[in-house]
Amino acid sequence: MTTVGRLRFRIAMSLDGFVAGPNQSVDHPLGLGGMQLHEWVFGLAAWRAMHGLEGGDVDASTPIVLESVANIGATIMGRNMFGGHPGAWNPANPWNGWWGENPPFHHPVFVLTHHPRPPLALEGGTTFTFATDGIETALARAHDAAGGKDVALAGGAKAAQQYLAAGLVDEMVISLVPVLLGSGERLFDNVGYDLHGLTLVRTVPAPNVTHLQFARR
Amino acid sequence: MTTVGRLRFRIAMSLDGFVAGPNQSVDHPLGLGGMQLHEWVFGLAAWRAMHGLEGGDVDASTPIVLESVANIGATIMGRNMFGGHPGAWNPANPWNGWWGENPPFHHPVFVLTHHPRPPLALEGGTTFTFATDGIETALARAHDAAGGKDVALAGGAKAAQQYLAAGLVDEMVISLVPVLLGSGERLFDNVGYDLHGLTLVRTVPAPNVTHLQFARR
Repeated sequence: MTTVGRLRFRIAMSLDGFVAGPNQSVDHPLGLGGMQLHEWVFGLAAWRAMHGLEGGDVDASTPIVLESVANIGATIMGRNMFGGHPGAWNPANPWNGWWGENPPFHHPVFVLTHHPRPPLALEGGTTFTFATDGIETALARAHDAAGGKDVALAGGAKAAQQYLAAGLVDEMVISLVPVLLGSGERLFDNVGYDLHGLTLVRTVPAPNVTHLQFARR
Repeated sequence: MTTVGRLRFRIAMSLDGFVAGPNQSVDHPLGLGGMQLHEWVFGLAAWRAMHGLEGGDVDASTPIVLESVANIGATIMGRNMFGGHPGAWNPANPWNGWWGENPPFHHPVFVLTHHPRPPLALEGGTTFTFATDGIETALARAHDAAGGKDVALAGGAKAAQQYLAAGLVDEMVISLVPVLLGSGERLFDNVGYDLHGLTLVRTVPAPNVTHLQFARR
């Protein structure tokens, strides 16, 4: 019998529901003001260690951050999160996204896109596979690749919306940041009128953020 | 020296930012699905006692509900919250709102409207005064009437948006309910790109709701 993991995601959201600000660009991948959503994480020792940095703080956010990356065997992301809008793949001028030569995943990553392209194997065990057969097929492939571990849904908003609306998310952690962005990309647009089986199971107040953990009933 | 109270409001909001569902009407004053925002409160002994009912529960929401009604000397509300869209006042057919003959306020209430009308004195100490000179004048009158106690902003969304955008709110409690409404009236539309001086000071997890308390820096 094969063990199948869960599909999980954690995302930072403003009090007015945005996960990115307006006018996203290569210079401002999170949009105007979007960096405010992540300021609580940068000082954490747990986050710094993941990025090769020493020192930092330990607070109530620490276990949330550590849990979100524990027991993950594969990741799914939207094409914007892979690296902008590359359009059709051009072998003469390949665009390898903005994760650099040694991306921080170290496991198989499935990129949701309409543009077929051969897999891209980078250093450190990260291979980007371009999944053009829809979100359910991408999820099945990610579960296979994860070998029984969980699958992380890395974002962005549109990918999260699609999996939420399809009722395929098993765990969701909203890191609610007490700021307004006013406009930008909303997490819950196009998701419908309920949480598709997810229910609040834990609330964790922490400095400058409140984590709301949802799980499937 | 005159003591001036604070302008405070507490409001229930869905995870996707709505304080009322779509298609509000006399039959569904909170809009479709909007009742979900208030289910956590109906079982509380504190809420039941305010409405003349016995019994009920005590949980982490209890002090939040009690604090929201303590030390209030006057209330401000939008005209929809007074009672729909009465239009210009017609002495031959007065519409006295939907609060009944003995409204639960028991202090002066100022209704933001463009339609002048004489004050409406009802039983139990509640007088509705129709404030047609804008939100700042209404607030000054409410502070005078409150005699040094605080002023409650009862809603709805548009009234809250106007006072938030003007930076006039001193305390705000968002009772965040872990459901989606999908559409309806958003609390933070038209408020802009920041909280106008409000900062998160307390997070209170409670059954089926998380209270986020903001205060002026």
